[in-house]
Parts: sequence; C-alpha cells; structure tokens
Amino acid sequence: MKVDICFSPALYPYYADNNTARIVIVVDIFRATTTMCAALKNGAKSIIPVASIEEAQAYKEKGFPVGAERNVKRCDFADFGNSPFDYTPEKVAEKDIVFTTTNGTQAIEAANDAHALVIGAFSNISAVVDFCVAAQKDVLVLCAGWNNRFNIEDTLYAGAVAKRLLDKGYTYVSDAVEVALAMWKDATPDLRHYISHTEHIKRLVANNLQDSVEYCLTEDTVYLVPVYDKGTKKITIT
Amino acid sequence: MKVDICFSPALYPYYADNNTARIVIVVDIFRATTTMCAALKNGAKSIIPVASIEEAQAYKEKGFPVGAERNVKRCDFADFGNSPFDYTPEKVAEKDIVFTTTNGTQAIEAANDAHALVIGAFSNISAVVDFCVAAQKDVLVLCAGWNNRFNIEDTLYAGAVAKRLLDKGYTYVSDAVEVALAMWKDATPDLRHYISHTEHIKRLVANNLQDSVEYCLTEDTVYLVPVYDKGTKKITIT
Repeated sequence: MKVDICFSPALYPYYADNNTARIVIVVDIFRATTTMCAALKNGAKSIIPVASIEEAQAYKEKGFPVGAERNVKRCDFADFGNSPFDYTPEKVAEKDIVFTTTNGTQAIEAANDAHALVIGAFSNISAVVDFCVAAQKDVLVLCAGWNNRFNIEDTLYAGAVAKRLLDKGYTYVSDAVEVALAMWKDATPDLRHYISHTEHIKRLVANNLQDSVEYCLTEDTVYLVPVYDKGTKKITIT
Repeated sequence: MKVDICFSPALYPYYADNNTARIVIVVDIFRATTTMCAALKNGAKSIIPVASIEEAQAYKEKGFPVGAERNVKRCDFADFGNSPFDYTPEKVAEKDIVFTTTNGTQAIEAANDAHALVIGAFSNISAVVDFCVAAQKDVLVLCAGWNNRFNIEDTLYAGAVAKRLLDKGYTYVSDAVEVALAMWKDATPDLRHYISHTEHIKRLVANNLQDSVEYCLTEDTVYLVPVYDKGTKKITIT
C-alpha cells in the first residue's frame, strides 16, 4: 500500500494515478474539516458541502441551517461561520447542515472520484488512520490549501498521517511525502510554535478568530470518520 | 520588495497577484534550465522553447537544431537530449536551438505574462540574484516540478534564491517560502545526500542519466541571465 500527498486541489488531476481505487483524505485544518468533525460529533445528521455561496443561499431559502465562510469570516446570511465552536449540540443535533468555506468544500468537489473520500483533521486522526489501515487501500491526503496555494498546516497534518501509515507498513515514492514527513518531524517538538509562523495564523489573528487554533491542533478529541457519499452528496459518519 | 515561490506551473494562476510588475524565475534543475544556461554559455545565439513535440518536429523539418526530451529520455528525432553536456560549443555556437522538455518549457509558457521571465539554475544563481536586486522588483520563483507535481530539487533552488534575496532586504509572507527556506537550511550541510532521496534522482539513475547531477547542483559555473522575450519567443542572454 502506498501513501501520497497533494498540496492543492488544483494539483489533484496530476496525482490521479489511482483515484478510483484509493482513499482520499481531504484536510483543511484551519478550519473546515475540523469544524465538520465537531458538527458531526455534536449530533448533526449530515453535512452537505457546497462549493458556491449561491448554492448555500438557495439551501438557506429552503430552510436548511447554513455554515458559510469566505476569507475566514462568516457570510452575513449564514447561521454559522467556520469555527468548530459555532456548531453546538443545541444548534446542530439531528440536522442536515449546509456548509461552504473558502477552501475545504472546493477540495471535496475536486476529489469526488475517489473510492472513498473521507474528512480528516487532527481531531479525528486516529479514527481516519484506522479506517485506512482496515481498508488496505492506497491513500492520498489532499490538502485544501488557501485559494489553491500551498499551506503549512494542512501539509503538517498530511505528514502526521503519512508517518502513522508508514509505521503500519505503507510505503511512498513522492517528494511531497518526503518533505511533509520532514516538516512533521521538525514541527512535533513544538507544533504551536512552528504553526505560529504560518500565513493562516496571521490571517486568523488579524480577524480575532484565533480562539479555535488550539482545538484545531489537538489530536483525537473525537473518534469518527466522516465519509462523503457521491450519490446523496452528503457527509455522514460511517 | 517581496519574494514568493510557486511549486508547480499548474498553481501559477493562484500566485499571480502581481505578475506584470514582477520578475519570474523559471527553474527546472534536472535538467532543462541548467541545460539552457550551458547552451547559451557555449555560444548558442538563442533558445526557442516550445511546449509540444509537434512544434519541435516542425522546426526540425525547417532545418533548426532541436533538443527534445520526454520522461528524461531524448526523443528519437532530436539532435540533443536534456543533458547540459550535449550542448557543446562545436554543436551550438551561433545557432538558434529549439528546445522542448517534459517540464521546463511548459513552465515558461505558463509564466509568459511576467515583467521579465528569466531562466534560473544553480549554475547561474549569483547572476540571477544580482539581476533581481539590480531591477528592484518583486520576484516569484516558479518551480517546473514533474508533470506539475511538486519536486524537491526545484524547491531547494527556490529556497536558495529566497535566502539570498532576504539577505539583500527582500521580505516574504508565504508558507511556500517558509518551507523552502527550511528545506534549504536542512539540505546545505550535504546537498548531494539530501537530493539522493528524490524521485527525480531515482528516475535519472534508472535511465543511466545521472552523469550531469553534480553539474546541475554546482553553483556559479556560469555568469549569465537568460531572458525570455515574449515578442520573438526566444531566450537570449541580457
């Protein structure tokens, strides 16, 4: 079994050797995929990811609760922004939540040809790794990045997943994995310090939205694997 | 002045904030841009980069000497492959050389909206950095990568350029620069060893084409700045 890493949704076509037989883990640490895990943990029935604001508004008019973020800020019309703390049990239990974010939901759309498309975050890293190992499939970690640009936090998560899969007998050939593993090794003595140099932290701090950073970097606060269903276009827990 | 780094031609549109006022350095260490510098050093009048095999063949029929490579190997119809050692003074002096490679020439096509598009390699790194500093323009290093995938060797070069520009007063904000600088710092104690783990070295060794690796990693064997002219579609020395 092999693991590979793709740094941007825009590069996904070039990492598409084996997609239909492969598990793709979509990650957007700050904060979309961490938030999806939190919402599902808190009882949401499903997440309906949509790529555009227009689609999200159309759902809102039909009565769906909507999470919508662009450039780290909550969209005016939305019920929730992109913080995991917005999605409390009182607000989300038993509901189908429509969700659109700057990067995370676009990545899901890019990778919907995968054998299985799962949602990864530090918060559910053990659950996702266990799922991959049990399935005995090749794995690609697809970093959502920022507007298709490379980012550090998603790459660190990808390195953390790769390290765990290698420990379980997976192999790799790609330069992207080599670098993500080296970054993860450099970062682990003090992940918060390493992350403090990133573009996204500066963006969150500038908008006073850094309250969830610690949560987004904490491993295994939930044990669940959100899976995207191509037919229903919903994300639910397996 | 700012420096940024783009890991793939396919990501160039997402790093395009300021292209028309910016110098773009295209790099394909193994081996296209190193080879272009060698050919120009050895007296070639110009390099005419073309993206497709068909265009190269059309030039060949018109009598032009042609360098053409795909997947590290020389194309059958071509006069030269992609090794800098192919382009000797006897073969290239005073000639316009048509050139197409798997990655490097595509990168040039992607970035032809730049204020100035220059060809970078370790072999001419001081000349290119001096050119940028003299121009006092923002700089983007565009890594050719491998079939639009991230690669280590071009990123290391980008880190080396960024380090030199920061030493001259440039600044950066991007995560890509942060990572490339860290990689360059890790690699410099033993660049050959660091590079020995890359995909491309394995590819060159598998095809017995590793003879030019040492040359491709050596700094400042030439002092020239190849510049692409949008009008003539030729690369010449400034």
